[in-house]
Amino acid sequence: MMEQTKPNSGLEGINATSSAICYLDGAEGVLAYCGLDIHELAKHASFEEVCFLLWSRRLPTRSELGDLKTELGKGRVLTESMLRMIRLLPPGDAMSSLRTLVSALSLFDDEPETVSADAHYKKAIKITAQISTVVAAYGRVLKGCNPVEPDPTLGHAANFLWMLNGERPSDVEARAFDIALILHADHELNASTFAARVTAATLSDIYSSVVSGVGALKGPLHGGANAEVMKMLEAIGEDATDERVDSFIRDLLSKKVKIPGFGHRVYRTEDPRATHLRVMSREVGERTGRTRWFEISERIEKLMKEEKQIDANVDFYSASTYALLGIETDLFTPIFAVSRIAGWTAHILEQYANNRLIRPRAEYIGPTYPQQFVPIGSR
Amino acid sequence: MMEQTKPNSGLEGINATSSAICYLDGAEGVLAYCGLDIHELAKHASFEEVCFLLWSRRLPTRSELGDLKTELGKGRVLTESMLRMIRLLPPGDAMSSLRTLVSALSLFDDEPETVSADAHYKKAIKITAQISTVVAAYGRVLKGCNPVEPDPTLGHAANFLWMLNGERPSDVEARAFDIALILHADHELNASTFAARVTAATLSDIYSSVVSGVGALKGPLHGGANAEVMKMLEAIGEDATDERVDSFIRDLLSKKVKIPGFGHRVYRTEDPRATHLRVMSREVGERTGRTRWFEISERIEKLMKEEKQIDANVDFYSASTYALLGIETDLFTPIFAVSRIAGWTAHILEQYANNRLIRPRAEYIGPTYPQQFVPIGSR
Repeated sequence: MMEQTKPNSGLEGINATSSAICYLDGAEGVLAYCGLDIHELAKHASFEEVCFLLWSRRLPTRSELGDLKTELGKGRVLTESMLRMIRLLPPGDAMSSLRTLVSALSLFDDEPETVSADAHYKKAIKITAQISTVVAAYGRVLKGCNPVEPDPTLGHAANFLWMLNGERPSDVEARAFDIALILHADHELNASTFAARVTAATLSDIYSSVVSGVGALKGPLHGGANAEVMKMLEAIGEDATDERVDSFIRDLLSKKVKIPGFGHRVYRTEDPRATHLRVMSREVGERTGRTRWFEISERIEKLMKEEKQIDANVDFYSASTYALLGIETDLFTPIFAVSRIAGWTAHILEQYANNRLIRPRAEYIGPTYPQQFVPIGSR
Repeated sequence: MMEQTKPNSGLEGINATSSAICYLDGAEGVLAYCGLDIHELAKHASFEEVCFLLWSRRLPTRSELGDLKTELGKGRVLTESMLRMIRLLPPGDAMSSLRTLVSALSLFDDEPETVSADAHYKKAIKITAQISTVVAAYGRVLKGCNPVEPDPTLGHAANFLWMLNGERPSDVEARAFDIALILHADHELNASTFAARVTAATLSDIYSSVVSGVGALKGPLHGGANAEVMKMLEAIGEDATDERVDSFIRDLLSKKVKIPGFGHRVYRTEDPRATHLRVMSREVGERTGRTRWFEISERIEKLMKEEKQIDANVDFYSASTYALLGIETDLFTPIFAVSRIAGWTAHILEQYANNRLIRPRAEYIGPTYPQQFVPIGSR
């Protein structure tokens, strides 16, 4: 039996697996998918190319990309029963609804259980396609509108905005959202991906594994943070003065309240994704004539740097960017899932390909063994 | 930054947390909940006492146990909408349905998100109560029958059999099932409990965490194994000769097929739960006049011990025991969840009480960083 280690409750710095998907250097602030720097991908790639990259460890040829787009286009169509379920679901937290709906997708799938690598890959495409339609349709129903049918001629990002808003996005909006999807697509063994891999490692199916990811992403210490950032910005108010911004944040800090959107387990520098989202927040603000969210965000960032020496993370500027793209706060975390599904499925497939049950131990700190069983009359 | 370790893909022997819930000594074959040996609990305790023990680290007084039984009794009643959802769900794998239904429970809960320790505790009771009704009602619908209303005068085990079969169980049947629930209630950081804790550690809600547990339990390397054992027994046949049993197993072994219900990551001796389930399989068999499943199981166990030197685990004799209790194979793994919910919620509450995000690292083995971005026309 292996010797047990002293407990590391966050598994910080523990390599829980080897993986060919994401290269992350927290000290240098580097994020790369299969060796390709996130800055290069944000500049040149589309989300579909990134999906292919994460799943296949290389960029697609033109014909491979065409095939993938066709498959994604087909996969985006939901069954009538699934659409009915979205309409019938009682109102509730958006991520709880998404978790339930993604779980239900497997019941509307003729072959939910896959065993071959090829079938896993096709399932990854299908779920990636479907989760975008589920979130958009859910967003429509939430606003009291009918779901909009996917348009297979549009790219994944543009189609999502189309299904959500029922209006063709401008090229600028579509590209901004495409970049947001690229930036959120994978991040090594973040908590939701790790939850997905722990689930996959029992050889449970892809849906179960993705559902674990959705449930973990919901948490305010993970994907839930972008919605928390927006709630904070809204509490401050778009018309707030600089003084109000400062006093609001200083007040939270003095009460030792955690400010959402700051700090990261891995990065000791700026989160490289924040670099892009900051630019997007400013640019989309300028285009829509609403620059105040960006200015307020920038002011909070500066204050946090001065007071706490911590950097903004991926969630901080995604909040104002999404708000300026006209997306409801309730959908911020579901949209994170629309992107991260690419990484989840890549990791699930990698787990299946070289599986070992993930089963750590716990250091026991409870009542000394053996305790005597005292009958209820004598307790 | 902490130095990264060499990858341990199964986290074998790694202490991922400290915990006061389960004492597990794999070398000595000891399993104890909060210091109380599983053999003592199987002999003297009820499942309700074990729930209290796991949640509160001590056995309840008579009045505390009375209160818990009252709360469980109340919690078992499902809303009409939830019952409708069980009926409307498309047919599919039982664990996929359970995962979806447990996820949906949160949408029918007026206060799905809890923040205080007291509220978490009440939610643990409620979900433990509800999951038993969900599984029983699902089992009824699967058989084309109407769900049976819970009877608050019955204990948790007896009530489950009542709701499932629509007949009062005998004392012997009720006690056998009570013991099965006790034996499966917790097992330290098994894969489903770990998935639940990884999810809880993002401060996601209890439902999300439990749903991760359900998804992980579904896997054939975890809870799914008891159903796999039964499928194997059925393939052998209840009327099989000893020779057929031997040749069936030898054939699988020669093809290097994994035999379900054998071996365990932690135990280097017999699984102490198997000791009880073996007795139950024999006793329930004798009482029902069907002893062949037990004899076949015993023969397989002996052969595996001789050929592979591995012991039966908790899943091996639970298969024949459940079959003899009249439970459909499809419900074996859901029933595991009806019991393990006690441990999942105990671990989730413990995680919340002293939380740290569970976020390991991965050793990167992909294409060297940085790769050059080659435009699509040149690929």
